[in-house]
Amino acid sequence: MSSLEDSPLFITALSKGLSILTAFRAGRPSMSLVELAEHTGLNKSTVQRSAFTLEALGYLYKEPVTKRLRLAPKSLDLGTGYLQTSELIERSNPYLHELNRNVEESCNLLEPCGLDMLYVARFPSHKQIAIHMPLGRHLPMYCTSAGRAYLAALPEDESDAILMASERQGYTASTVTELDQLRALVAEARSAGYAYAQEEYFAGDISVAAAVVNADGYPLGAVNISVPFSRWTLEDARSQLAPKVINTARNIASATRSLRPVG
Amino acid sequence: MSSLEDSPLFITALSKGLSILTAFRAGRPSMSLVELAEHTGLNKSTVQRSAFTLEALGYLYKEPVTKRLRLAPKSLDLGTGYLQTSELIERSNPYLHELNRNVEESCNLLEPCGLDMLYVARFPSHKQIAIHMPLGRHLPMYCTSAGRAYLAALPEDESDAILMASERQGYTASTVTELDQLRALVAEARSAGYAYAQEEYFAGDISVAAAVVNADGYPLGAVNISVPFSRWTLEDARSQLAPKVINTARNIASATRSLRPVG
Repeated sequence: MSSLEDSPLFITALSKGLSILTAFRAGRPSMSLVELAEHTGLNKSTVQRSAFTLEALGYLYKEPVTKRLRLAPKSLDLGTGYLQTSELIERSNPYLHELNRNVEESCNLLEPCGLDMLYVARFPSHKQIAIHMPLGRHLPMYCTSAGRAYLAALPEDESDAILMASERQGYTASTVTELDQLRALVAEARSAGYAYAQEEYFAGDISVAAAVVNADGYPLGAVNISVPFSRWTLEDARSQLAPKVINTARNIASATRSLRPVG
Repeated sequence: MSSLEDSPLFITALSKGLSILTAFRAGRPSMSLVELAEHTGLNKSTVQRSAFTLEALGYLYKEPVTKRLRLAPKSLDLGTGYLQTSELIERSNPYLHELNRNVEESCNLLEPCGLDMLYVARFPSHKQIAIHMPLGRHLPMYCTSAGRAYLAALPEDESDAILMASERQGYTASTVTELDQLRALVAEARSAGYAYAQEEYFAGDISVAAAVVNADGYPLGAVNISVPFSRWTLEDARSQLAPKVINTARNIASATRSLRPVG
């Protein structure tokens, strides 16, 4: 990346302004200019001018009393274009919806982004109150079923490079962080055609996932079904839900054969 | 806006770069540099440098053969921060989910943005194959139930200013575009506590909506239920679904009393 950033074509002011937008996250929904400077590493003058510009364009909103900045609904325009233009999402939606009606549990499509998977389509369970898991949310690949299903469909050297580059931290007491154990889980997913995880990222969550591959056999993303520990065991999820998630991933793959991996 | 853009604080390079991101929409998922220049009104050199920067940062993706540009999944990071930081969405989700389980039809939360409403939360129907209606999609206020419910909760001068500023085009043969008719529909929604629309924007769609207001009585957004013409009549939707959408909007309002309108 750094060589690209050194190119005379690279617009630093654009890059810095975008980093302001991505600084707002769950846990810091509003920030002062000083906090924005801290979280972006930009100097105060750049933060002030960027924030002024983003506010003038309607992407940021300044709270009247506190003067703290927040993202405004219009900021959705900058990111949800992808949701409106992705052929993978559009072609997957009917199959995800069918799966969701069939299993009556949360069914999702995730796509890779660096060392993470991103939620790009989501059909929540009919049964429980949905946890707030918005589209665009990142999950690490190494400790989630969708991530491991994706890794298992990658060429082994690419998969291994991602595992080695991942910051393998323990989100729960159950998170698998040991490299050889993760390699074994990915190998197991490769032969079984699906991956699973239990409470490795979210407490109380069990999930199974299968990769969606294109005509070259290269993975575009993964379908997962996520169920609560309160109503399911890992064994039941693997025996009852894994065949369905594999089937849905295959149906989506048939509808997206010609697509290429993005990014 | 133009006075803000003339300010020495305004960063033109940031504004221009953002306009590249928002140029990708349903109907033009991929563009060449020449097409991007056409659709943004920017000169070719600015387009080239902005696109180079956005590609270097991972937000755009260049198709290997055609060299056409597309949004990459990472672009979701720029917009979905709002979904992750909005208290209105987070507090509304459980009520929307409950409504969705109760009526088994598509239930949504929309927020205002200029002359439009934006989908910010969405629980699709269990019954039909979902149409692709992604979060962040814009709908005009004047001809949608959510928009009219929002307008009805605004002070009358603000509501009227929006109606007059709206480009009132006929999306279907049923779209109401005549100003006095629209004023009458908004007044009807004001006294009934909900708004309705039938096939005014989408063919085959019937919807009812109620505004979510804060402690000052000012609208923050609207809840809607959207049902297909194939299974519902407008009369049934009004008699059976309107009381439920009003009730949900009230429950959300109780949970969001302290929030202020954004933007």
